[in-house]
Amino acid sequence: MNAEIIAVGSELLTPFRTDTNSLYLTDQLNQLGVEVVFKSVVGDDLKHLVAAAQHALFRSGIIILTGGLGPTEDDLTREAVAEALGIPLHREAEVLAAIEHRFASRGWKMSPNNAKQADILEGATVLPNANGTAPGQWLSGKVEGREHIVILLPGPPHELKALFESECRERLRAKLPPAYIATRVLKVAMLGESHVDARVAPIYKQYCDVQTTILAGAGEIELHFKSRRATMDAAQACVDEVADAVEDELGDAVYSRDGQSLEQIVGYWLQMRGATVAVAESCTGGLLAERITSISGSSRYFVGGAVVYSNALKSELAGVPADMIARHGAVSREVAAALAEGIRYRCEATLGLGITGVAGPTGGTATKPVGLVYHGLASDSGTEVIERNFPGDRKRIRRFASTLALDMVRKKLM
Amino acid sequence: MNAEIIAVGSELLTPFRTDTNSLYLTDQLNQLGVEVVFKSVVGDDLKHLVAAAQHALFRSGIIILTGGLGPTEDDLTREAVAEALGIPLHREAEVLAAIEHRFASRGWKMSPNNAKQADILEGATVLPNANGTAPGQWLSGKVEGREHIVILLPGPPHELKALFESECRERLRAKLPPAYIATRVLKVAMLGESHVDARVAPIYKQYCDVQTTILAGAGEIELHFKSRRATMDAAQACVDEVADAVEDELGDAVYSRDGQSLEQIVGYWLQMRGATVAVAESCTGGLLAERITSISGSSRYFVGGAVVYSNALKSELAGVPADMIARHGAVSREVAAALAEGIRYRCEATLGLGITGVAGPTGGTATKPVGLVYHGLASDSGTEVIERNFPGDRKRIRRFASTLALDMVRKKLM
Repeated sequence: MNAEIIAVGSELLTPFRTDTNSLYLTDQLNQLGVEVVFKSVVGDDLKHLVAAAQHALFRSGIIILTGGLGPTEDDLTREAVAEALGIPLHREAEVLAAIEHRFASRGWKMSPNNAKQADILEGATVLPNANGTAPGQWLSGKVEGREHIVILLPGPPHELKALFESECRERLRAKLPPAYIATRVLKVAMLGESHVDARVAPIYKQYCDVQTTILAGAGEIELHFKSRRATMDAAQACVDEVADAVEDELGDAVYSRDGQSLEQIVGYWLQMRGATVAVAESCTGGLLAERITSISGSSRYFVGGAVVYSNALKSELAGVPADMIARHGAVSREVAAALAEGIRYRCEATLGLGITGVAGPTGGTATKPVGLVYHGLASDSGTEVIERNFPGDRKRIRRFASTLALDMVRKKLM
Repeated sequence: MNAEIIAVGSELLTPFRTDTNSLYLTDQLNQLGVEVVFKSVVGDDLKHLVAAAQHALFRSGIIILTGGLGPTEDDLTREAVAEALGIPLHREAEVLAAIEHRFASRGWKMSPNNAKQADILEGATVLPNANGTAPGQWLSGKVEGREHIVILLPGPPHELKALFESECRERLRAKLPPAYIATRVLKVAMLGESHVDARVAPIYKQYCDVQTTILAGAGEIELHFKSRRATMDAAQACVDEVADAVEDELGDAVYSRDGQSLEQIVGYWLQMRGATVAVAESCTGGLLAERITSISGSSRYFVGGAVVYSNALKSELAGVPADMIARHGAVSREVAAALAEGIRYRCEATLGLGITGVAGPTGGTATKPVGLVYHGLASDSGTEVIERNFPGDRKRIRRFASTLALDMVRKKLM
């Protein structure tokens, strides 16, 4: 059975808002063995909504509508589905009492327009919403001789997710043939997307029953593998086989085998080795420290660091000799090494990272163009420096540089 | 005339990718006076694509399809539109030559399947694509007696944007009645969304011909005003009137009147006053420095800073007395002030910022719960400290704290 998702709300037709609920729902449906074949966004317009619901009923077995269950006259999802299916709505006393109770329990009085949130499609199961006033609705049965499931869910993501998990997932599973779908995610650092694809496509293309998706960011690539088989063991064996073969091909460029982020993996290795790290950043301006400390518990291995934008501060906080900066320039192999060594010494850390470069868009020269970054890693076995020319804008260059620095720590410790 | 946007591609029906081209196109269309009434995402499936195009032709005057113009057999947008409109495709020699030339100029040989990118809808104008092989197509004329414009654009955002700007905007303008639409954006720091709405709704609701949109982030709120009138002067006067009235109500909580970010405004004030700033961050872990240095040219006013996660480093890099930390705890009003003063002195900056708090999810106590943050600002007129309890998760708390710190600088200098 295929599914489609209709997101309802005029705010989703502005330049400012995008429908993200459908990403969550797609993931959930995929796990149940259901493919999403169509998504749409419709404004708060009864005629458009009815037409969208009718087209969906014609095309798909499972239809999920999100949003448009509020109390205002713009909230028309209930009315539209009733009209599309040709069934009446009735106000359900029990639901109305629950909404009134919800208001009363907060010391508020329910305003009269909230009563329409108790309007239920004839034959629908009410899905209680613990996080909001609008209940969801579940309707299953034959439409023109074909089995259909129509689900109405509230738009706010935290309400929608809680309601899907508590009320929809198992109901759907019971209606569907058993699905045995296994997934694996590999993450790769500092290799180009086309380079990775050229190396791994000959592998994953041998497995026509494994669906492979490649997602690329600045310096990070994710490879998603998915397989559906007659048993869970068979599905798992299948994705493991392709993931293992791809991992063998890419070697230690693969930093994660089960979805963990690079920041988490770096934290894992630092704790594993009983090591600490300190950073001295110029062009990344705090991004490297920010990424390391985005992980809860990072105080166990992150001592701290310095953001040394001015040359004076490179000397003052990270101990880079002023005459070295004068001789080689602030953006140089020597200064990257000195930043790493200086901050390591200053912070008494096991490892020191230093980054200096030109993030742009201004400040580039013929010999030191925008995108040139030096990354230093100091440890008790010495200091290594990697020079790279990154493409892209300021944001992308800073992201690339911080990813490379994190990956240097991983490779040092693994 | 209304528009609808159809994004084509099975990758947009996975849990990983969302259609963002439509946000850009909606903004562009709105500026031309066109409302987007429907958006959809369709996979690489001819039957679904034809149905989607037919529904769109029935509902909307302007139909933009994005993606599905590549060279593979999954790229079916051309074929689907031809079938939906009942017109033939023909391979255009000139377009084919241009594609062959594009390959040859890079020293590559065109593979045979690329030839299908030269298939043009009968009567369509070819829109040359400077950034890729697939040209766009523009078709206008009557379908069942009603005027329609159908536009095919490539999916990669940089190709789509360049092509829309160079080939579509003025063509559309010429086909549409003149639209006089003025917009204004106000940005507000550190006020709650419901609080802001309660204060400004009585104002903007008096202007039924001004469309108001409120967008909320962690500590930042944007108010978008849009008006369409018979002349540009009238439209501008209308949004100015409501924006000015809202600004009067919110006072100096409004930090931006023309779309600039808080980071840009803080940089503006620092340069305006010939001032510099340095930061010492604990719980924000580099985020504050990262936000300040996200602005190109920030080296003119940002000296640098320290990320002082460990207590030892709070003393070592920012000069916080160890006995102060022992007496009051690292998360305290006193330490926030000492961080601000210490880093200001150490970096010889005009202003010093210090942040210390509990970002969570672990590390909270009964007296110092998750979300408690102290923000210090030191200057030659003394040191102020603001204490706040922020809601939300680690990421949100860090974002709130860095926004408040930036806003302290703005209020100090304005």
